[in-house]
Amino acid sequence: VTQQAAPSATHVGSAAGGYDALVGSGLFEKLPELLQARVGAHRYAVISDHRVAPLHGEPLVRACAGAGLEAHLFTFAAGEASKTRKQWSILTDALLDAGVGRDGCVVAVGGGVTGDLAGFVAATFMRGIALVQVPTSYLAMVDASVGGKTGVDLRHGKNLVGAFHAPRLVLADPRTLTTLPEQERAQGLVEAFKHGAIRDAAHFEWLGAHAEALLAADAEAASEAVLRSVEIKAAVVSADERESGLREVLNFGHTVGHALEAESRFDVAHGTAVAEGMLLEAEIGERLGVTEPGTGARLAEALRRLELPPLPTLDATAVSRFLAADKKARSGRARYVLLKRLGEVDGAEGWSREVPDALVLEVLEERLRRV
Amino acid sequence: VTQQAAPSATHVGSAAGGYDALVGSGLFEKLPELLQARVGAHRYAVISDHRVAPLHGEPLVRACAGAGLEAHLFTFAAGEASKTRKQWSILTDALLDAGVGRDGCVVAVGGGVTGDLAGFVAATFMRGIALVQVPTSYLAMVDASVGGKTGVDLRHGKNLVGAFHAPRLVLADPRTLTTLPEQERAQGLVEAFKHGAIRDAAHFEWLGAHAEALLAADAEAASEAVLRSVEIKAAVVSADERESGLREVLNFGHTVGHALEAESRFDVAHGTAVAEGMLLEAEIGERLGVTEPGTGARLAEALRRLELPPLPTLDATAVSRFLAADKKARSGRARYVLLKRLGEVDGAEGWSREVPDALVLEVLEERLRRV
Repeated sequence: VTQQAAPSATHVGSAAGGYDALVGSGLFEKLPELLQARVGAHRYAVISDHRVAPLHGEPLVRACAGAGLEAHLFTFAAGEASKTRKQWSILTDALLDAGVGRDGCVVAVGGGVTGDLAGFVAATFMRGIALVQVPTSYLAMVDASVGGKTGVDLRHGKNLVGAFHAPRLVLADPRTLTTLPEQERAQGLVEAFKHGAIRDAAHFEWLGAHAEALLAADAEAASEAVLRSVEIKAAVVSADERESGLREVLNFGHTVGHALEAESRFDVAHGTAVAEGMLLEAEIGERLGVTEPGTGARLAEALRRLELPPLPTLDATAVSRFLAADKKARSGRARYVLLKRLGEVDGAEGWSREVPDALVLEVLEERLRRV
Repeated sequence: VTQQAAPSATHVGSAAGGYDALVGSGLFEKLPELLQARVGAHRYAVISDHRVAPLHGEPLVRACAGAGLEAHLFTFAAGEASKTRKQWSILTDALLDAGVGRDGCVVAVGGGVTGDLAGFVAATFMRGIALVQVPTSYLAMVDASVGGKTGVDLRHGKNLVGAFHAPRLVLADPRTLTTLPEQERAQGLVEAFKHGAIRDAAHFEWLGAHAEALLAADAEAASEAVLRSVEIKAAVVSADERESGLREVLNFGHTVGHALEAESRFDVAHGTAVAEGMLLEAEIGERLGVTEPGTGARLAEALRRLELPPLPTLDATAVSRFLAADKKARSGRARYVLLKRLGEVDGAEGWSREVPDALVLEVLEERLRRV
């Protein structure tokens, strides 16, 4: 008998009335009954990549059929390269061919790419149909599936086309993490550490202390980590659905992180880039006297436990050029979220601010040399 | 000196806080100052088709430059054939190439196609940027520019991909109507008649009595017609932004109208199809005892003044097949908005209902033979 913790529901506020994020071991098997009770769609379009489809997508469609629900499976090639307008078009047409209508529902089963891509299909299909997010990776569970962001990548950058589209339900079953490659687990856990870093120092320390169990996808540790991350993210996005204010705090580590990813031509994985971005932004904050001294060292100590791959050699000047092109830049100037201390973002000048280019370059040069 | 009526502002409620729809002769010239005061974007992306661009798009960009605003003009080939995902992609990429960012603003200057297409660009650009609708056709002024619907067409049907994206401002200057071909004026005015038919019988009669002045784009008559239509539409969409309830009343004439368009392979223009749809749906309502007897005759008497082109020969059975495929259908059954009397929709069974297929086919057969 597998351990089955009682599921926890976190409510996420949104303009459309809000939705529940359910976290619990064994929840996946209750999905057909939850879809029926909470969505009641005419047809369900289950969208998974070709790697997750046999593991979770096909079983779900079979379970839906067994429960008397009409469900169809739509698959695409796994990987960020599928997050395109082209793949979005193909999926949209396939849903229409299958007779999915306004009273249909998209069920996104997979990692962050699936949630973003399938979410954008749901957001734009007949101007928006019901969406259920079923994240099966740490990244998707602790971050991507909550908050309603959907989108695809362009040659100009990631997520440049998309929409905010709140799901009707988020269901995270930590048991599905056992099918996730270990290196992807570490990448996704970085966002959980980020949630601790910006809002809950005790949880941050807890994550560091339980890194080994989390990397092994231990059901109890994973449930605890996912649940607390979802709570933190839900509290932030409930207060600010459209990223005009408080939601900016979620970008801690991401301004520098995105520039590292971009300069490496996405050879550096997102988690690695954000982990490094947090360390660099902590260093910038400490030198500006905004961030409590020693914060960067505490971040580094905990993140070390995730055994992320090292950064490749990157040129500081080249990295800094990508900062101004950041999607969050205003009037061509990059903006940074700075910690006040571990567990708290500094809000003295709003939730993000500009910092001197020279300081950023200096920190980049020192840090990238050290790597 | 051209006559310049005081502009009228109608507030439209939306989840994002709502926006004003301004109607008035000469307003177009105040656009740069209004953009500055009400949007304050970093860059303005003016989007027009190649026919409207020299008439209104280029003058606007020049006026913006004169007022110290950075504005770029983006054009596309006029016509419904441009309302595609491909054209949306091309415009999106062009905005990125021009350095438009999150703090940019799309200004849609033109008819319904421009509003839908440019609106979808704005709705999805970096998950949504500011949008200002500047309708220059009757159709766009009285209908398309208010309510936040955006989208493009697929081979499966019209507007099957899109988003709800409330504009920051709608500005309708009836003077721009003088550049609109007369046949397009008649087509667009059909939606104004529809607004009268569903909510204001006196306005409906007024439109019929002033059809000649309206077709001539007389500034005073046009302002009155646009203003009242905007008020009616604003009241409906403010109460129901996402088309889950009251907003359905705006579909009067459109269930049959869309089927006529589809069966003619869009050879029949939208206005002509909706006018015919209203007459057919009134007839259906009268035979069901829902619609006051004589309503169809009053609709026909007024709409006749628009001198719309006659319908081509269409097969009733073929038309009826398109009804079940309607985007508004539920569980494969078409839904109809029926009038109680001129100026009032029957709401006894919700704002739309199913009607017997045999009755629809009978009315289609009689009416299409008579044409």
